[in-house]
Amino acid sequence: MSPFTGSAHGTSDWQHIEVGYEEGVVTVTLRRPAKLNALTFEAYADLRDLLGELAREKRVRALVLAGEGRAFCSGGDVDEIIGATLEMDTSQLLDFNRMTGQVVRALREAPFPVVAAVHGAAAGAGAVLALAADFRVADPTARFSFLFTKVGLSGGDMGAAYLLPRVVGLGHATRILMLGEPVRAPEAERIGLLSQLTDEGKADEAAQALARRLADGPALAHAQTKALLTAELDMSLAQSVEMDAATQALLMHSEDYAEFHASFTEKRPPKWQGR
Amino acid sequence: MSPFTGSAHGTSDWQHIEVGYEEGVVTVTLRRPAKLNALTFEAYADLRDLLGELAREKRVRALVLAGEGRAFCSGGDVDEIIGATLEMDTSQLLDFNRMTGQVVRALREAPFPVVAAVHGAAAGAGAVLALAADFRVADPTARFSFLFTKVGLSGGDMGAAYLLPRVVGLGHATRILMLGEPVRAPEAERIGLLSQLTDEGKADEAAQALARRLADGPALAHAQTKALLTAELDMSLAQSVEMDAATQALLMHSEDYAEFHASFTEKRPPKWQGR
Amino acid sequence: MSPFTGSAHGTSDWQHIEVGYEEGVVTVTLRRPAKLNALTFEAYADLRDLLGELAREKRVRALVLAGEGRAFCSGGDVDEIIGATLEMDTSQLLDFNRMTGQVVRALREAPFPVVAAVHGAAAGAGAVLALAADFRVADPTARFSFLFTKVGLSGGDMGAAYLLPRVVGLGHATRILMLGEPVRAPEAERIGLLSQLTDEGKADEAAQALARRLADGPALAHAQTKALLTAELDMSLAQSVEMDAATQALLMHSEDYAEFHASFTEKRPPKWQGR
Repeated sequence: MSPFTGSAHGTSDWQHIEVGYEEGVVTVTLRRPAKLNALTFEAYADLRDLLGELAREKRVRALVLAGEGRAFCSGGDVDEIIGATLEMDTSQLLDFNRMTGQVVRALREAPFPVVAAVHGAAAGAGAVLALAADFRVADPTARFSFLFTKVGLSGGDMGAAYLLPRVVGLGHATRILMLGEPVRAPEAERIGLLSQLTDEGKADEAAQALARRLADGPALAHAQTKALLTAELDMSLAQSVEMDAATQALLMHSEDYAEFHASFTEKRPPKWQGR
Repeated sequence: MSPFTGSAHGTSDWQHIEVGYEEGVVTVTLRRPAKLNALTFEAYADLRDLLGELAREKRVRALVLAGEGRAFCSGGDVDEIIGATLEMDTSQLLDFNRMTGQVVRALREAPFPVVAAVHGAAAGAGAVLALAADFRVADPTARFSFLFTKVGLSGGDMGAAYLLPRVVGLGHATRILMLGEPVRAPEAERIGLLSQLTDEGKADEAAQALARRLADGPALAHAQTKALLTAELDMSLAQSVEMDAATQALLMHSEDYAEFHASFTEKRPPKWQGR
Repeated sequence: MSPFTGSAHGTSDWQHIEVGYEEGVVTVTLRRPAKLNALTFEAYADLRDLLGELAREKRVRALVLAGEGRAFCSGGDVDEIIGATLEMDTSQLLDFNRMTGQVVRALREAPFPVVAAVHGAAAGAGAVLALAADFRVADPTARFSFLFTKVGLSGGDMGAAYLLPRVVGLGHATRILMLGEPVRAPEAERIGLLSQLTDEGKADEAAQALARRLADGPALAHAQTKALLTAELDMSLAQSVEMDAATQALLMHSEDYAEFHASFTEKRPPKWQGR
């Protein structure tokens, strides 16, 4: 835990998502397989709250986001979310849409890398959750469907109109968000949407292996790399160069940097502490 | 028409471009085929004024930009534009270059998607007009030539040094704008400059089909997707997520969103109103 | 030379890098082949100072950055830099990291295009120097290794977390900077990191040919294209369009623009003056 603890304490039992932990790696599994892991209001709220809590826990060095059953996540539930929003007033609609956006911000601002393990459908909000991850590890069954316009909404949902052009370029992003057509694994790989393409059925395993490697490595260096990548999308070159300089000066006093030099001098592998 | 009408009224006869309309789709055709649709001062001014007028007309849901004859557009006319600018003073040169930039801004800020139908040369200002569209539908004869340096000018003309890196990345954009070499259809497709590659001679037809689909679909959702993609290139993640939340809350009160839910529940295709 | 000269004058003898000049093309060669051109404190400082001086010399129209021997540049020397930084205090570390960042800013802000000629390893700071160039001309032996996390540091070194996502997209950049794995020439070409792939052993020759072409061409137009590409990464569309308009108005009064029109009219090749 962070030394900065107050009265609030962690949630011991997550009811709408499954949360596992093993030596630095948290695995969050969307687990509503009969509905292709469609999201409910409670699932969004749990993701928001969980990410807030994990950001304060020093034990977390990597997170895997996965879906149980035949799909990664089919997005907001048509009955439970679309139907319900039709009854909401302006204030409630803004609350809901801000909550889903907070999940994306929490993924991007988490002080650890996030690996999405994608197979089958990653649709609607499910596609944006995968997009907000640092790594997308997918098998050949994966298809990313930013289908918001197909339900009459804007393709810019939960930051998608910000993130997608920065991942695949403005031309592809416009086509994908405007038309809402599925992007299947081969195209996703070709345009830079995938970090790793695995054999069929192997996305979870490969995502776990990547998270394990990240957690067992120089985790503070990984976390700061993510923080800079996220921040510098919104900064100028001059600001970024200054931020990099301050960050490296900080990390040059870290234990892992000294350990690298010692291990190199002693011709042995480094023992990373993640600090 | 928008309910917000004042004294000004629409131009009934465009002399330097051809403008057609059919059920939500405006087609703007550059029509000076003997000169490969080279642009004149009047053609630029007409494009600027037309886009200003169309932005206020609610009947427009998609726009196709096409060129008659053997090319899409060969850019500014060497005699009528380059020759004439050599006689201009500083103030006139700034006026001219601001006008061409206004055409690009008007394309990016239009409240409807723009589809460029490209065959043959898209050169100089012609390449930038295509770049400023939301979709580039091209046939195998298409070649994009950002040839500004070849006439002694900056490759950053009409926003090209802003737009091209955001479409194909900084490395490709530097090479293309600095050297001014043509980008032929296969390379354009590979680097993400094309939205759709058609069979030879089929760019116009495919662009019309795409515009028809966009106009007949949830057009307000399409328009807002474009608005967010355009705006969020210049915004931070936090700002973008907030803008998305407000936009979705707005659209969740739209007729098309309710119609999607009704059609889904009744297991029938939605009847989009575009509002 | 620029007419704006004061008391300071140019360095006549660079000790830690080799600097050659031939008709507008400066060639900077990293020359410590026994150490794969590993950088020392002095080499960084020389690059910073040299680029500052060259920016004021009107005779420079293109720069080639190359490495002698089996590699382009293996980055900061493990003994002379990593070892030394372990003894530094906070202020010294910030000084060092700001200096390396200044080299990248100087490359991006230089008033002439920079061509990196890459063969073999471009590792650590060597990879970032290549990334900061306008063109990366590489042969099949090239491999770009942003290996900062492998020594316990942030992947965002010297502006890499700003530049790489803008060249290859956020997904590839995250993978490359976080994991520190080498990007070999075929992948580099596929994701847009290379400007030109040459035959084996031909990177230097091709880089010289490109620099020669840039220097002999409309060099002021090339310089302004670079300036706009660099600046407009950090500007909005509206600002960029205005900056383009002012730049083109300026260049329309340049000698090269008039020369283009004269040569076109007289049906002869233009004689570029670079002004």
